[in-house]
Amino acid sequence: MSAPRRFETEGRPEITVRVRVRYAECDPMNVAHHSVYPVWLEIARTELLREQGLAYRDLEASGVLLVVARMNLRYKKPALYDDEITVRCIVLPSAGVKIEHAYEVHREGVLLATAETTLVCVDKTGKMHPVPASLLE
Amino acid sequence: MSAPRRFETEGRPEITVRVRVRYAECDPMNVAHHSVYPVWLEIARTELLREQGLAYRDLEASGVLLVVARMNLRYKKPALYDDEITVRCIVLPSAGVKIEHAYEVHREGVLLATAETTLVCVDKTGKMHPVPASLLE
Amino acid sequence: MSAPRRFETEGRPEITVRVRVRYAECDPMNVAHHSVYPVWLEIARTELLREQGLAYRDLEASGVLLVVARMNLRYKKPALYDDEITVRCIVLPSAGVKIEHAYEVHREGVLLATAETTLVCVDKTGKMHPVPASLLE
Amino acid sequence: MSAPRRFETEGRPEITVRVRVRYAECDPMNVAHHSVYPVWLEIARTELLREQGLAYRDLEASGVLLVVARMNLRYKKPALYDDEITVRCIVLPSAGVKIEHAYEVHREGVLLATAETTLVCVDKTGKMHPVPASLLE
Repeated sequence: MSAPRRFETEGRPEITVRVRVRYAECDPMNVAHHSVYPVWLEIARTELLREQGLAYRDLEASGVLLVVARMNLRYKKPALYDDEITVRCIVLPSAGVKIEHAYEVHREGVLLATAETTLVCVDKTGKMHPVPASLLE
Repeated sequence: MSAPRRFETEGRPEITVRVRVRYAECDPMNVAHHSVYPVWLEIARTELLREQGLAYRDLEASGVLLVVARMNLRYKKPALYDDEITVRCIVLPSAGVKIEHAYEVHREGVLLATAETTLVCVDKTGKMHPVPASLLE
Repeated sequence: MSAPRRFETEGRPEITVRVRVRYAECDPMNVAHHSVYPVWLEIARTELLREQGLAYRDLEASGVLLVVARMNLRYKKPALYDDEITVRCIVLPSAGVKIEHAYEVHREGVLLATAETTLVCVDKTGKMHPVPASLLE
Repeated sequence: MSAPRRFETEGRPEITVRVRVRYAECDPMNVAHHSVYPVWLEIARTELLREQGLAYRDLEASGVLLVVARMNLRYKKPALYDDEITVRCIVLPSAGVKIEHAYEVHREGVLLATAETTLVCVDKTGKMHPVPASLLE
């Protein structure tokens, strides 16, 4: 998937969350370890679900799971310990059993990273399940 | 609980596992973050269960859970990235619904940390459950 | 160290921070893994430092490090995914090269865990260093 | 980058490491959380460096850092707690300041995930630095 173009994202559901970089998330290079970004993306994505009226906790309780099937990340500048960063998450046009999200991580207007994920919706037995319509628009 | 005395540990079930310190486990001080030690203790404890004839995976599948109720750690010297460390785990005399373990973390004969944990055995509903006898001796 | 008694904590520097339990922090028992609590304690402790006028980031930059030498935790009730919890952190009477903190983790008034830590102040070479006075009161 | 084709990988430096899935790495879906895979990839990549004669610890000590600039992951099947998995890592043809690696994660012959990363070589000031030749072939 290429990076989302402007006209695609206009009017799409989106959210921006603030996260402070934890000491335990930083590595000997003095920057947030690259494995932490997926956790931040998940926080933003989950908050977006909540804004769309669906706590992921309740979704799971109802027997529907969203599984990460694909994740692409590009790291442009490091995030440092104690930085307050923002993670913007937007739902890309999606259909069927998949939801695509795109992300931007910023610190004070500076772009630190971009990412995209594809989630697949499954039931408790692992079978594909249509994404609840409220999550797509 | 005081530190295990020699005579208490003689003949007790024990194990020593080797772990290499991961880059992602180290922090800006260039040492393993203190929150990683509980993960290492758990690895040793789990391997000891396996040696005692009970994979924790199977225990959980049978509806019996071991929950950490107490954990004490003393950090004496840092573990560095890429260090190969050993974690020794020993079952202390325990009974009823609890198992007590003591731990020592070493790097090439140098003591890095000591710890003790208390696990409580519960069923899926959270009710206390006697510890399977095979785990205590 | 025994649990802090009321009269000891009165007037001591303290802080309460809110943390939302992340999905990645939860384990197959559906609760926050016990190794995550030390990370939450550190967040509260760091925020208290900041309130005391000293960002830990600046402290490290000045060549003074605070190293965890001891940590005791008691887990009473589980924290669940998406729970909003509070971590209360208080500086206990400390002196010399050590700072002692006590902690309580709550969810909506229910006590989930208590903890204490001892930090030791060192310089970049690892030598003991007096704790900056502003952190002790 | 497309997936490595067979003829590209023949004769390229590669390694396969074994990793056991830790309890703390698993989430409420009872599978390894997707943010753990980058940590496993790093373990394999680091072991490959070591086989190529260069411990990453020594590389960093010499003032040369390898920074993750890009990471793509495709998750095909879940890894479960206590699974023993293998991570195969191969150096793709690379030049200049970049190293490209491709990865496959298997459990007993079943492909669980594939990934690629691009590392950029920098010095301590963050300036681009040619990749040490011994790492490329």
